[in-house]
Amino acid sequence: MSDSKAYSATEREAVYRVIAERRDMRHFRSDAVDPDIIKRMLIAAHQAPSVGLMQPWRFLQVSDSALRQQLYELVNDERLRTAEAMGERKSEFMKLKVEGILDCAEIIVAALPDGREKYVFGRRTLPEMDLASVSCAIQNMWLVARAEGIGMGWVSMFDPQALAQLLKMPASSKPVAILCIGHVDEFYDRPMLVEENWTQERPLEQFIYQNYWPETAEEQGTTSSG
Amino acid sequence: MSDSKAYSATEREAVYRVIAERRDMRHFRSDAVDPDIIKRMLIAAHQAPSVGLMQPWRFLQVSDSALRQQLYELVNDERLRTAEAMGERKSEFMKLKVEGILDCAEIIVAALPDGREKYVFGRRTLPEMDLASVSCAIQNMWLVARAEGIGMGWVSMFDPQALAQLLKMPASSKPVAILCIGHVDEFYDRPMLVEENWTQERPLEQFIYQNYWPETAEEQGTTSSG
Repeated sequence: MSDSKAYSATEREAVYRVIAERRDMRHFRSDAVDPDIIKRMLIAAHQAPSVGLMQPWRFLQVSDSALRQQLYELVNDERLRTAEAMGERKSEFMKLKVEGILDCAEIIVAALPDGREKYVFGRRTLPEMDLASVSCAIQNMWLVARAEGIGMGWVSMFDPQALAQLLKMPASSKPVAILCIGHVDEFYDRPMLVEENWTQERPLEQFIYQNYWPETAEEQGTTSSG
Repeated sequence: MSDSKAYSATEREAVYRVIAERRDMRHFRSDAVDPDIIKRMLIAAHQAPSVGLMQPWRFLQVSDSALRQQLYELVNDERLRTAEAMGERKSEFMKLKVEGILDCAEIIVAALPDGREKYVFGRRTLPEMDLASVSCAIQNMWLVARAEGIGMGWVSMFDPQALAQLLKMPASSKPVAILCIGHVDEFYDRPMLVEENWTQERPLEQFIYQNYWPETAEEQGTTSSG
């Protein structure tokens, strides 16, 4: 790589900054987001790596307000089912804001397409690598949004079959994210689930091993419902 | 968000630049990577979003050269099996460089830990969201590496059970990536699989839908082996 192409210290710091300051947002304002920013978020998604270059991401922009209401209800149904699964933390869970579907300016559903079975490259033994690629694309969207001062939240609290049916998706396709996008009054200083005392972050040092998985490695989590 | 916290045009452009210039690398030099860069890549990984804040990423740094050789052989085994699955494109596939395990300076295996079943938040109906979180973490590593002028490649061509056994991983944990990291002579201008005429990129416009999945949407790919 020639020196002329090297990133300046300012550029590198911007990359570190946006990675550190990105947050999974749940609190939004409803004022419109510049359509050019949404477009640039989607372009960034499309620049993500994908296994065998299969580009397995599809994006449904939900502008229909009745459809948005249906998405909300579908998520709320799963929220109640999740609450039941939380056991003794049920009432604590019910106080958390887990989505911003009716509040935010823009909703984009990200999905895996049908016809994926023909893509063998890099996923013969790990077919779920298509989801990995879509996730890299969504991370790109998140970083662009943050750099533009726009919040984004990834909601995965839904029945994927019910959502697929609602969106008239073909069999063997699969929705993986309801992305809430919009202006925010402020970004959380720390992950919202930490700020709300739902759980704590564990230090990176616990997650780095040398060569082999250590015999002493154990799940450190004390929050059984995560 | 107060104006003082807004990203400057220079910062925003750096974010767009790194997303556009990141490449899934397969060609590496073997000279050492500054350990501080590796550390910052792992810190960036750990700043990724995770479903219910479960932080499902684990990183095995492979410094043992005999172990690295075993990783290479394991990947080469799957490469041959993938070639067989490619049918008429087998010989074309065999000419591609699909990994740089013996060439690069650093190898990190990324894995999902055991004990994930207790995390219900955001994954009661979509348990694979843990892989989504690890993928966001890996995308962060990729972007930091690129900003630092370092190449990274995500190799998923392996039998995960065989790799787990090799790395002495517990049952129900799962390796999802062999990350090759190192200096490169140059970054590909376009994805390597495009430069090698393996496949073509399809335009973003084909992948954006309005509200519902269109009846006319079809898999456009002509490369049946991806």
